[in-house]
Amino acid sequence: MLNFDFYNPTRILFGQQRIADIGKHIPPQAKVLLLYGGGSIKATGTLKEVLAALGERQVVQFGGIEPNPSYETLMQAVAIVKEQKIDFLLAVGGGSVIDGTKFVAAASMCEDDALHILKTRGSSIKAALPIGVVLTLSATGSEMNNGGVVTHKSTQTKSAFFSPLLFPQFAVLDPTKTYTLPTRQLANGVVDAFVHTIEQYLTYPVNGYVQDRFAEGLLLTLIELGEKSLHNPEDYDIRANLMWVATLALNGLIGAGVPQDWSTHMIGHELTALYNIDHARTLAIVLPAMLTVRQDAKREKLLQYAQRVWHINEGNEQQRIELAISKTRDFFERLGVDTRLSAYNLDSTDVEKILAQLQAHKMTALGEKREITLEVSRQVLTLCL
Amino acid sequence: MLNFDFYNPTRILFGQQRIADIGKHIPPQAKVLLLYGGGSIKATGTLKEVLAALGERQVVQFGGIEPNPSYETLMQAVAIVKEQKIDFLLAVGGGSVIDGTKFVAAASMCEDDALHILKTRGSSIKAALPIGVVLTLSATGSEMNNGGVVTHKSTQTKSAFFSPLLFPQFAVLDPTKTYTLPTRQLANGVVDAFVHTIEQYLTYPVNGYVQDRFAEGLLLTLIELGEKSLHNPEDYDIRANLMWVATLALNGLIGAGVPQDWSTHMIGHELTALYNIDHARTLAIVLPAMLTVRQDAKREKLLQYAQRVWHINEGNEQQRIELAISKTRDFFERLGVDTRLSAYNLDSTDVEKILAQLQAHKMTALGEKREITLEVSRQVLTLCL
Repeated sequence: MLNFDFYNPTRILFGQQRIADIGKHIPPQAKVLLLYGGGSIKATGTLKEVLAALGERQVVQFGGIEPNPSYETLMQAVAIVKEQKIDFLLAVGGGSVIDGTKFVAAASMCEDDALHILKTRGSSIKAALPIGVVLTLSATGSEMNNGGVVTHKSTQTKSAFFSPLLFPQFAVLDPTKTYTLPTRQLANGVVDAFVHTIEQYLTYPVNGYVQDRFAEGLLLTLIELGEKSLHNPEDYDIRANLMWVATLALNGLIGAGVPQDWSTHMIGHELTALYNIDHARTLAIVLPAMLTVRQDAKREKLLQYAQRVWHINEGNEQQRIELAISKTRDFFERLGVDTRLSAYNLDSTDVEKILAQLQAHKMTALGEKREITLEVSRQVLTLCL
Repeated sequence: MLNFDFYNPTRILFGQQRIADIGKHIPPQAKVLLLYGGGSIKATGTLKEVLAALGERQVVQFGGIEPNPSYETLMQAVAIVKEQKIDFLLAVGGGSVIDGTKFVAAASMCEDDALHILKTRGSSIKAALPIGVVLTLSATGSEMNNGGVVTHKSTQTKSAFFSPLLFPQFAVLDPTKTYTLPTRQLANGVVDAFVHTIEQYLTYPVNGYVQDRFAEGLLLTLIELGEKSLHNPEDYDIRANLMWVATLALNGLIGAGVPQDWSTHMIGHELTALYNIDHARTLAIVLPAMLTVRQDAKREKLLQYAQRVWHINEGNEQQRIELAISKTRDFFERLGVDTRLSAYNLDSTDVEKILAQLQAHKMTALGEKREITLEVSRQVLTLCL
């Protein structure tokens, strides 16, 4: 096991009717900016519920944070924070709203150019406004971690940033808030949590027995419930488990003390930035090809994955690995998530465009061993066609 | 899944050579009381290492905290804190030292009779000194939770107390610090972590898929590594996994959103208070009998436990349950931990003494459904003979 630090002070308020409790965790005198996305929280009644829980506090609203939140949009929120002297940010939404809110929290306290936050991956953050979260879409885990991803539209760049100052102070996880989600977003959430787990699990063995068992537990639960969730929109326990799995998949726990990969994410980010493909869908495209190309480096963990997650005990090593990868692809497809670039009308000329972006963003030594050069990424992307 | 709050702000510094980092997490001007147990930390060099990491800070030492730390001993430390104006407590040891330090943290800030803390199970705690931990023995999980157990010697009462103010600010988990532990303490630690997990897992199903998978992951790891650890005192990865398992078994995670039992602990506490039997050994005595007596109420989870933890797939339900319980007992015995009261020279007259203590301490409705009356405890204890 590798040495690690684990620290996660976010308070989780899990279950039905928990929005009512947020008032206990926000200072009574706070002036709150409530950030949200496309406005579904108005239709579902969640906005009303949140406003009721905020009571007498002054609340300013900022809607319109888009999927893959953009620097350009978020800077409008930063301007409002400064003008209105906001001192608490409340994100009501999914990963994009929360990531965006984290950026606003840091950028509002930043005296330099806020782009510097993205360029330094967050290491330049010296202060941030406090954040609370009401989660309406399980996927990214952003509700219980200290990172975010923001897109700079003008340069088609998706940048991740991290800071210990960006943990939400609390996050409400009410599974009933996901009942009204479109199937596409539900499926995306399952794929996202699955690939987050894989990025921290399918590397090389370091005798992280506990981490492996926990990661496998998340994967098994996603496989058991993922497809069912699409057909049972109001099954509380299914939604509750998927919600808690997605949070645990990226709150630092399963990645503590083990190597991490994240190459599928880095390549996927380019696909989203160039073609606006949903984040989770880019992961579903890249992962099966990545595992195929990297199977020698990942051999031992792939065999463990085949056995413990897919219960594959027959065949030689090569066959078991191939079957595990093919079952992974089938799982995504059964969720209605296409796993080929061709399904998104992309072809080999696009592969070169994606590679050019990877090069521009210095993504030329990816993966747990930094072995994924541009040439390896070309092999992966070619296999994705 | 049940509604839950999860909050755990303790920072874990895991791995070799991590004691050197504690200075970053204690205020430079702090006046530190360093609390420890029997003094093995002097022989092993850990004390020296801790003092070096504390640098120029003023440090007062308080040794002699006993296993099952007593109120009487701890009040001596409270007197020192007050006299010397201590403002940071550093526990260097295992669960007893950490639990004791938590009591000192609260009692030092308490204006009433400090016994009140125990009588209110900690709910009367209004303030506590900050605590840091250097763990030398994995077992109780106290290094990453907000509870403790203290024995009031004069009344032979073991009392648990909890407060959100009692989370350690940091805990150093250096697996090499457990290399010199006696086999007995190692085995106790494995049993303790095992039964902590069982108390939060073997109840009744609430569709906590994730919690079940995580609990099973901890149990599988303890079974895989527990006995090996006794014969491989300097195998880093075995010690590292056991250390992390024990912490995760009682940091609030696996118990969040599911029913909890704790009846084995409540009865075990009386055995320790009356006969000074090691805490873990009392659990190993009570658990197999408790599962046997409670098998109807726990039927579904016992079958799941049999299948997923012990890989028992043959036989009818009754046979599978009995085999799972018998494998549990065998596991403890193979660790060198006796599982019968008779092995500790206790007999049926002692059963009555234990029951009288349970009654005196109002432990008359135990378990996840509060169904364990004194009469059920009598059945359990009789089966323990």
